[in-house]
Amino acid sequence: MKKNCIVAQSGGPTVAINASLAGVIDGVIKCDKFDKIYGSVHGIQGVLRNNFLDLSDSSEEFIKSLSYSPAMYLGSCRFKLPDVAADKDTYQTIFNTFKEMNIGAFFYIGGNDSMDTVDKLSKYAKEIGSDILIAGIPKTIDNDLVVTDHTPGFGSAAKYIATSMREMAYDTYIYDIQSVLIVEIMGRDAGWLTAASALARTSFSEAPHLIYLPETNFDEDQFIENIKTLLPVKKNVIVAVSEGIHDKDGNYISATSAVADKFGHAQLSGTGKYLENLVSSKLGVKVRSVEINVLQRSAAHMAAKTDIDEAFLLGKKAVEFVADGYSEFMTIITRTSNQPYQYEISHSPVINIANQAKSVPREWINKEGNDVTEDMLTYLKPLVTGEVTISYVDGIPNYPDISHLTS
Amino acid sequence: MKKNCIVAQSGGPTVAINASLAGVIDGVIKCDKFDKIYGSVHGIQGVLRNNFLDLSDSSEEFIKSLSYSPAMYLGSCRFKLPDVAADKDTYQTIFNTFKEMNIGAFFYIGGNDSMDTVDKLSKYAKEIGSDILIAGIPKTIDNDLVVTDHTPGFGSAAKYIATSMREMAYDTYIYDIQSVLIVEIMGRDAGWLTAASALARTSFSEAPHLIYLPETNFDEDQFIENIKTLLPVKKNVIVAVSEGIHDKDGNYISATSAVADKFGHAQLSGTGKYLENLVSSKLGVKVRSVEINVLQRSAAHMAAKTDIDEAFLLGKKAVEFVADGYSEFMTIITRTSNQPYQYEISHSPVINIANQAKSVPREWINKEGNDVTEDMLTYLKPLVTGEVTISYVDGIPNYPDISHLTS
Repeated sequence: MKKNCIVAQSGGPTVAINASLAGVIDGVIKCDKFDKIYGSVHGIQGVLRNNFLDLSDSSEEFIKSLSYSPAMYLGSCRFKLPDVAADKDTYQTIFNTFKEMNIGAFFYIGGNDSMDTVDKLSKYAKEIGSDILIAGIPKTIDNDLVVTDHTPGFGSAAKYIATSMREMAYDTYIYDIQSVLIVEIMGRDAGWLTAASALARTSFSEAPHLIYLPETNFDEDQFIENIKTLLPVKKNVIVAVSEGIHDKDGNYISATSAVADKFGHAQLSGTGKYLENLVSSKLGVKVRSVEINVLQRSAAHMAAKTDIDEAFLLGKKAVEFVADGYSEFMTIITRTSNQPYQYEISHSPVINIANQAKSVPREWINKEGNDVTEDMLTYLKPLVTGEVTISYVDGIPNYPDISHLTS
Repeated sequence: MKKNCIVAQSGGPTVAINASLAGVIDGVIKCDKFDKIYGSVHGIQGVLRNNFLDLSDSSEEFIKSLSYSPAMYLGSCRFKLPDVAADKDTYQTIFNTFKEMNIGAFFYIGGNDSMDTVDKLSKYAKEIGSDILIAGIPKTIDNDLVVTDHTPGFGSAAKYIATSMREMAYDTYIYDIQSVLIVEIMGRDAGWLTAASALARTSFSEAPHLIYLPETNFDEDQFIENIKTLLPVKKNVIVAVSEGIHDKDGNYISATSAVADKFGHAQLSGTGKYLENLVSSKLGVKVRSVEINVLQRSAAHMAAKTDIDEAFLLGKKAVEFVADGYSEFMTIITRTSNQPYQYEISHSPVINIANQAKSVPREWINKEGNDVTEDMLTYLKPLVTGEVTISYVDGIPNYPDISHLTS
């Protein structure tokens, strides 16, 4: 009797994570080693709660529309598996369910926390002599997973950020007065997304004129000096900052800006808002801050085709590797050429990936710590390429029915 | 000898205002009554400063790419013409330039402040017996111009808002915990844009569950009650609020939320941020606020084709009306049918339009003041339809060279 599979999604959303799900579904349907493919709703918690969707009869059309959709079709969780020594019960519940459902493979799509789950389940399977194969598939807009060249979701978020940055630059240039625009971008510990704003530049616009990543220390006085120098020359100075920039002592710039509301409650303003107030009070120039916020991880209409195609393949290939008997791995991308952009998909032991984070190398940031280098641009450029065609109904993008999450 | 024309843009940007410019250029090039078409850079200030671009040789390709571009190709100004009684010199300078350049018609694309300029120039022309014809062409994302059914720029901003709202709703539904998302939308005095968020709804998602426009008074206690009632039923409550919501005494909700930064400087937090803090402190639930900010008026990649086509026609028809001898008007849209959507373009005296504002009718808001009615949806639906095809280079939208504004 053929075994069945379970797939689940975990961590924060990206617009490519459903493409990896689509790849897994497509892979299982077309693989002669497995029978059913079940989706566990809300990550590993769906296994603990017996909350599954049977995805085995997914049509080609559904798989395609899933590939071009935002967020996470199966829902997510922020559930960290306990250590097996501390709580064996949870593991027993999971593996009992696997047994009852005749599961042969479990696929988990997520970031480095999710890879921790893959690692722990792999170890427990080994411990109890289970032959269930466990595979991880990467995703995170933050691009901070090690071993893989980059992560699904990053390219699309980067495309959205560069596009929005360019559009906001056009918006900024219209007035004949000096002004500063500060754009706050996600990525608390890794500056990849903020770096991608550099792709907005054109032959006639250097915006963003300044880029600050969390990989260097942020000096407020130097920042004000940078703007002061640029303003008379550029008229409009546009700045990209990571939400995670911090001073030399490691204090987040946003955290140092605690403000009190009218009730006297302390509240954190965002990094961008804090810098807006700083520039306004120090330079008295017109200044605006924009926090792109969740739009950068949910704008499926602006996904990069390259990113979606890779995410799909990373899911589909995971099924092939499992069918070949591999386990305890995460599928990875290895870049083999920049021009033309070429890559290979393989797999790597998850134990070397879980709970680690990849920062921007210091040599890809300029000496002054306020821009990125050509090497960074060479790395980024292929990842944002290609446009997706999504379906619109009455002028608004039409995405899959997620009533299993909304009701 | 044929006369020449000048066209200029003024006020805040929209993604349709360059389509109206393209329409004027195309109209003048194809009209046998006029010779050259000059673009005045930075609105009427370009006329005062002799800052013009000769647009007469614009190619079909340039006109097309202009139609699908963000912000204002000619730059803008926030310059209100003085009363002629107080400052005749300014008017004399303008009309001397018109004479030197052999100008027969002046086209001004803008909102109600810009229509004030059209009105004043028209009156002065009459006063001095000038035969220069003055035409206004509407634009504003706020949709608050009277007489015309709606304004160019609104439909595209509405499409962006509804799309982003839907994508953020998908992003919100993924976790199996109660949460509140508050989305702050532009439109300080008119709620049209905030109302458009209702187009995000689907058969399986009622988001936004609550919509608050500036046309009704906002009651904080009632707002908290609304959320408290919905949370257990909906799990994730998504709220759209206008930046301009105010209490029964007319105090902006954002203005009541003055906060002090670490230097003790008072600062205004946005309406959304204020409500985020309110919900957090009153209900202790997970809450996030998002300010869509300038993205809603600059995202040319998400323009509504219907909107762009109308904006182009409003510009082109303005040339025809002027060629027929009309002056002192603004081109307007009259809706003649909802299903199928049909409209006519004509013109109306600018004196009845300048300095006035159109609010959302009270009967298009529900009794409780926390949603819009079916009539509003019927009005909105056709305006966001149609998708534009823009050109991408290296994965990022490629918009016209605006080096005349950046250097």
